[in-house]
Amino acid sequence: MPSNRSRPLRILGTGLSTPAQWLPSTALDARLGLAPGTVEARTGVARRGIEPDRNAAEVAAEAALTALQAAGLARDDIDAVICANASLDQAMPCNAALVHRALGLSRVPAFDVNASCLGFLMGLDLVASLLADGRYRRVLLTSCDLASRALDPNDIDSLGLFGDGAAAAVLTADTSQQAAPPALLAARFETWSEAAHACEIPGGGSRLPPSRHDGDYAEVCTFRMDGKRLYRVAAEQFDRFVGALLDEAGVDLAAIDRVVPHQASLLGMQHVFKRIGVSRDRVEDIFASHGNQVSASLPTALHHALASGRLRPGDTALLVGTAAGVTLGGAVLRL
Amino acid sequence: MPSNRSRPLRILGTGLSTPAQWLPSTALDARLGLAPGTVEARTGVARRGIEPDRNAAEVAAEAALTALQAAGLARDDIDAVICANASLDQAMPCNAALVHRALGLSRVPAFDVNASCLGFLMGLDLVASLLADGRYRRVLLTSCDLASRALDPNDIDSLGLFGDGAAAAVLTADTSQQAAPPALLAARFETWSEAAHACEIPGGGSRLPPSRHDGDYAEVCTFRMDGKRLYRVAAEQFDRFVGALLDEAGVDLAAIDRVVPHQASLLGMQHVFKRIGVSRDRVEDIFASHGNQVSASLPTALHHALASGRLRPGDTALLVGTAAGVTLGGAVLRL
Repeated sequence: MPSNRSRPLRILGTGLSTPAQWLPSTALDARLGLAPGTVEARTGVARRGIEPDRNAAEVAAEAALTALQAAGLARDDIDAVICANASLDQAMPCNAALVHRALGLSRVPAFDVNASCLGFLMGLDLVASLLADGRYRRVLLTSCDLASRALDPNDIDSLGLFGDGAAAAVLTADTSQQAAPPALLAARFETWSEAAHACEIPGGGSRLPPSRHDGDYAEVCTFRMDGKRLYRVAAEQFDRFVGALLDEAGVDLAAIDRVVPHQASLLGMQHVFKRIGVSRDRVEDIFASHGNQVSASLPTALHHALASGRLRPGDTALLVGTAAGVTLGGAVLRL
Repeated sequence: MPSNRSRPLRILGTGLSTPAQWLPSTALDARLGLAPGTVEARTGVARRGIEPDRNAAEVAAEAALTALQAAGLARDDIDAVICANASLDQAMPCNAALVHRALGLSRVPAFDVNASCLGFLMGLDLVASLLADGRYRRVLLTSCDLASRALDPNDIDSLGLFGDGAAAAVLTADTSQQAAPPALLAARFETWSEAAHACEIPGGGSRLPPSRHDGDYAEVCTFRMDGKRLYRVAAEQFDRFVGALLDEAGVDLAAIDRVVPHQASLLGMQHVFKRIGVSRDRVEDIFASHGNQVSASLPTALHHALASGRLRPGDTALLVGTAAGVTLGGAVLRL
C-alpha cells in the first residue's frame, strides 16, 4: 500500500541521560508513611530516575551528546534537531530551541513534535519521510520528560509510576547496498479523542491560565489520569490496531524479533505480553527499573534493546504503545 | 540540490476563525488612560480579534471546518490532523487531540508541531514530505494562538501588538498533469538559539512549575520579549537567509508574485518590504487589521491573499518570517 510503503531509516546511535538520582520505591514508602514494599507491590516499579535540579533541555542535551558519540558524529554533522517531549520545558519557545541552545548549536533548524507519550515514534515516522525525501540527511531526535515536577506529592499511584529521563537517537536514510537495508517498514497512529481528557494536565496553557483560575494553581498543573477509561479505549482497539500495523508492514508476528513497548504501566505491560500473543522474553521490559518515563520511555527501552544486543542489525522490531490523546501508535522497524 | 528538491503540494482550501470580538486600539487607549490614537500610533495596529471565552481547540476547529468547506471536503476525507500552534491549550495532551475532539473525529491520527510563530510553515514543510511519500493523502493543518491570555494587562506594547485567531489549510499532493503543478519549491529554517530567551514565557512547563515558584505565578506565565535582541538576530541573518532560500527554489526575486510574511511587528513588516527589496504592493500586509496573531498570523495572511485573488493558481509565493527560538523560516510555494 502506498500509504505505508517502507522508507529507509537507519539508527546511527542512541543515548540516554544518567539520572541525577535513582529513587527506590522504598524511599517513597518511607516518605508516604507506608510499609516497605507497598509502592513497588502496587505499581510494579522498584526505582525510577529523578532530576531534582536540571531542566529538561539540559537532560535532553546529555542524552543527545551520548547518542552522537555512539553514532561517531559531532554536533555539526546534524542538520535538524527535533524534540518529541510530552511536556514543555517552558510555555515558549519550543523545547527544541532550548535543547539546541544547551548543545551550543548554530543555524541548524530546531522544532518540536508532540504526540504525548508516543512523540518519539511519531518523530521516527516524520523523520523517515524527511530523510527519504532528501530534506535532511542526519536528524537528532530527542525525548525528555521530567514527570516528577507535575505529580501530586500525596498520590502513591502516580508518584510510584513515573520516572524522569531523556533518550535520543541519530537517524539517517543512508543505506548500504544490503538486500534488506534498515527501514521503517510501516508506521500507524490512531487518535480516539473521546477520551482526550482521561489523561491530562488542565493548566499551563491558554485554556486555564493563572489569571483565570481561582485557588491553588499547582493543582491544575498536576497530572491526572482516569486509568480505567484509558484502559478501556486501549483494550477495545489494541488487537485490531497491531494486526493492521503488521499487515501494512507485510510482517507476521512470528517474524518480530523483539517487541519494544511504551512502558506505560504494569497492567499495560502485561497486556502487551498477553494480547499481542508473544512470550515475555521477546518483550523489552525495563518497567521495574525505570517506571513510566513518558515520552522518553519507549526510546529508553529501544536503547536498552540495542545496547544489550537483544536487537541486532537485520532484526525486526515492533515498537508500540498508547498515549494521552488517546493515541495508539506503532512502527515496524528493520534494523 | 537534493536537500531541497521540489515536492508536490496543493492547497485544497484555507479557512479562518471569526473572532468573537474585534477590539479597536481606541478601546485599549481608553482602558490604559491614554489619548485616543496612542496605541495605534505606537504599534501600527488598528484592531485585533479577541476570544474572551472560547478555548483554542474550539477556535481552531472553526477555522478547520471553514477550510474543509472551501476544499469541498468532509471531516472524514482527512487522514491526519496536525496542529502547529506556538502555545498549548493545556499542558497535556497535545493541541491536536483537543482539536480532533472538537471536530468529532475518530481514529484519524492527530499530533502537534511547534516552531513558535512559524509552526504553520514548518507544518507545510513536513506535510510536503509526508504527502510526497504517500504516507498521508489529505492533511488538515491548523494554527491557533490566544495571545490575549498571556499578556501583561499594563504593557501597551504587547497588548497593542497581538491578536487572537486561528487559520487552517487542507493539503494534498494530488496533482493534475499540469506542466508546473502546485509545489513546495523549497523550504528553509535556521535556528539561532543564543537568543532563545529573548522571546519567551518562562512558566507553564517543567522548568518553573507552580511548586517551584514563589510569588505570583501569573507573572511567569506572561509573554516577554527583548525586541532589540530579536531584531538584531533577524537583521544579521535575514538577507542571506532569503537569498539562500530563493537559490534553493531556483527562483529569482522578480519571479515572486507575492510575499506573505509573518505579521510580526510594524518594524518587522517594514523590513520585509525594504530588505527583501520588493515594493509594498507585492507584500500581503494585514498587520493593521489583525495585529500579530502568533502562529495563526502567516496562514491568515496566506488565506487573505488566496481569497482575494492576490495569489492565483500558477503564482509563486514567498512565505517568510522569524519566530521565538530564534528561528528564521521561509518557503517558496507554487500555487
